[in-house]
Amino acid sequence: MGRPPYVSLHVRASGRRIAASDIVDSVARELASGRLPAGSRLPPVRVLERQLALSKNTVQVAYDELYARGLVETREREGVFVAAGAAPTTRADAAAIAPPLPRLRPPPPMGRASLPSHGIALGPVFIDPELLPTERIAECVRSVLRQPGLDTFYDAQGHRGLREAIAARLSARGIECTADEVITTTGSQQALDIVARALEVRRVAIETPVYAYAKQLFETLGLQLTGLPLDPFAGIDLAAWERALAAGRPGLVYAISSFHNPTGYSYTTSEMVGLLELARRYDIAVLEDDWGSDMLSDGEYRPMLRMLGGDHVLYVNTFTKKLLPSMRVGFVVAHPSLVPSILAMKRLSTLGNVWLAEAVVAEFLERGYYDGHLAHVQRELDARYAACLAALEELMPPGVRWTKPGGGPTLWLDLPRTVDLAALERRLAAREVWIETRSAAFFGEPHLHGFRVSFAWQPVERLRRGLEILADELRA
Amino acid sequence: MGRPPYVSLHVRASGRRIAASDIVDSVARELASGRLPAGSRLPPVRVLERQLALSKNTVQVAYDELYARGLVETREREGVFVAAGAAPTTRADAAAIAPPLPRLRPPPPMGRASLPSHGIALGPVFIDPELLPTERIAECVRSVLRQPGLDTFYDAQGHRGLREAIAARLSARGIECTADEVITTTGSQQALDIVARALEVRRVAIETPVYAYAKQLFETLGLQLTGLPLDPFAGIDLAAWERALAAGRPGLVYAISSFHNPTGYSYTTSEMVGLLELARRYDIAVLEDDWGSDMLSDGEYRPMLRMLGGDHVLYVNTFTKKLLPSMRVGFVVAHPSLVPSILAMKRLSTLGNVWLAEAVVAEFLERGYYDGHLAHVQRELDARYAACLAALEELMPPGVRWTKPGGGPTLWLDLPRTVDLAALERRLAAREVWIETRSAAFFGEPHLHGFRVSFAWQPVERLRRGLEILADELRA
Repeated sequence: MGRPPYVSLHVRASGRRIAASDIVDSVARELASGRLPAGSRLPPVRVLERQLALSKNTVQVAYDELYARGLVETREREGVFVAAGAAPTTRADAAAIAPPLPRLRPPPPMGRASLPSHGIALGPVFIDPELLPTERIAECVRSVLRQPGLDTFYDAQGHRGLREAIAARLSARGIECTADEVITTTGSQQALDIVARALEVRRVAIETPVYAYAKQLFETLGLQLTGLPLDPFAGIDLAAWERALAAGRPGLVYAISSFHNPTGYSYTTSEMVGLLELARRYDIAVLEDDWGSDMLSDGEYRPMLRMLGGDHVLYVNTFTKKLLPSMRVGFVVAHPSLVPSILAMKRLSTLGNVWLAEAVVAEFLERGYYDGHLAHVQRELDARYAACLAALEELMPPGVRWTKPGGGPTLWLDLPRTVDLAALERRLAAREVWIETRSAAFFGEPHLHGFRVSFAWQPVERLRRGLEILADELRA
Repeated sequence: MGRPPYVSLHVRASGRRIAASDIVDSVARELASGRLPAGSRLPPVRVLERQLALSKNTVQVAYDELYARGLVETREREGVFVAAGAAPTTRADAAAIAPPLPRLRPPPPMGRASLPSHGIALGPVFIDPELLPTERIAECVRSVLRQPGLDTFYDAQGHRGLREAIAARLSARGIECTADEVITTTGSQQALDIVARALEVRRVAIETPVYAYAKQLFETLGLQLTGLPLDPFAGIDLAAWERALAAGRPGLVYAISSFHNPTGYSYTTSEMVGLLELARRYDIAVLEDDWGSDMLSDGEYRPMLRMLGGDHVLYVNTFTKKLLPSMRVGFVVAHPSLVPSILAMKRLSTLGNVWLAEAVVAEFLERGYYDGHLAHVQRELDARYAACLAALEELMPPGVRWTKPGGGPTLWLDLPRTVDLAALERRLAAREVWIETRSAAFFGEPHLHGFRVSFAWQPVERLRRGLEILADELRA
């Protein structure tokens, strides 16, 4: 640290030019406030002279006058200091002027922020890093550095080339849109955030169970929530949803239409049409979270809400899971009339996002790497999915059932009500097998009784080993 | 597009294994809903067989039965389709089931999202890209790619090495903290956002004028605001602030302590102490935005609120302006007891940020590039600042005054009340000189009458040319 930092002064000018007397008066006023303790260091002459655009002489004259009045003292090679007697004798003591701590809302009960570093995690929604195109992404980073090189600024709406590539991909699969309707986000989480912030009607309907961080996001933003019960074994009960929507009168319904998190359920086409009809009947807008559809097992897209309902449907997707989670690139597609409001919310939350990450994903898409990568992942996940179903069939005791999503990274494993989930989680943790049985994803009492099982996260043998231990504990 | 996408089905199992009759029943139920038009394509046999882990024969038997019942028809090399007569004859028409558009809040009146592409911009808060270390950052990117290589995941709180480097830098300048107290953010904007979301008491005091996007952020989050009038020519009137704080009873005061945006004002040390005393007296927490202090003109840090008031003070800073705006790396430093709540708000807004950007800034800091870069920028800005003051002195007509911040990128130019600011902005725009006279930064009627002038944004000759045109219009 060396010398103490010098204090900040404000020199008030009596005219357009600052005179030595202005400096004298300003320092005297600071001292008179009683808040500058004796021994405080004043700004060096060169600093004041440069700040105020004065000749060296002016500042020196002022400091000489302060010295003559006994207000300051000079110390060889150290500078000018507030004289003892000209101010309180003790330094302002931080403890004496510490403000109170801010009072913050308690954090909602969230899951662990990172994956366990050891043992077998049964439920991550991530794809095995071994299957991710890390080398090709590094290649795209190097390419971006060479050409076009790092940009100084960001486009608040998102990298233009990326938005164009996204619009082209979506249009090719039947979701007609242009780059101007795409807003990039930090993963799909920011997409949900900026849409939620922009809503005029502060009531939203969501599935139960649902992606827990969406529910908690909406809650912390003060939205009033209506739960739409989802049973992945029975399918959607549209009559029950209609009753819930009629009662809750939400302004928006948030739907995870493919490989729903956490149940693995995909809406059937007639359920999508039914939901759109309800939305129309009860004047409810629709936000579709389509994170899963790129993780189909057969490389063919099915009709989404955004296709069936047209461009009134807000559409969210992300490259996070499929490309490299650490890149954090997602997006929302919005009707042109909605873009200004949603973009304003993005600007107020982050101004704009990392140009480099967006340029790299644009490069990855422009090189045509994405389809090949998806096909590769899909083949791998198909094999793991089949092996997972076979292992469950072989290992699970009677009364255990599971969904058969046919894509995405996870399925839902449901247990007999007699199993104590919390105790099971503890017993498995003792054997370093991790499951997540939190009920944060549900509204009230859960109507399901289980947890996610991921076939995407780890090689077959490892998953099988985890399921063996699970079966073992279930029989115990 | 080729063939239309096939519809999604849900096959409900009657037992643990799915039988052909389950598939028949499920398809028949979908058709009975009346929402699947004739001509809809059913999932290919191979897809259902893979999804449901069935032998090929089971699905084929089911489809044969559906065919026998007249519910589906097969087309050579195209697949299986819903038969005419088995469902409504027209395809579900998107227009007929389009949901309403979401009703969104109108966007607040924000400035332009990007810098003008031509002409002379007088007021940007950015540093001239020519002075930014683009090549060295590219070098750091390449280095990160080689070693350690791209990480798959992100640390929700922020890259560990970056947080350690930040804590070490701050501790060296008298702001003692550890990596565990640092949360990285997408620029300082996200830092303000996640702190504001976490506040229990929804009332905040801010300077007026103030950084407009902070004010608008707080407003859109529903915070109740109290304005603290700041006159950069007179300094802070602590008695007036006390009256405002006593009346508004905020839970937090947000203060831009150095090179305040938009006035260029820096709090004097006694004003900081005075504010901390008020905070203590009225039970108000303090959030310091220290974006400016790395842009001192003399490379020496002065005492900040976080130094004077200790670790109860929330502290925000950012590398955005000083390094490369497109990297979007900022941070908040918080007392350990506050970290869980603020981190939860970060996770709910973006889950975590771009690993690559954070790793690159960490590398830049670890290589010791930052201090050398700041010294270089400071020398350049000193020269531009001096030239700017000289040009103003020479060119501005009587009655015009300006602040002398002695650092940061901008000063405040204040005009006689007789000047019509909106008309001036229009006349300058016609000559491709851009100023920003929006009053969004103020509470109510502005007590200042001017705009920012940036000496950091462009070379001296260019700025001088802009000021000449401004003087010309002021005389007109």
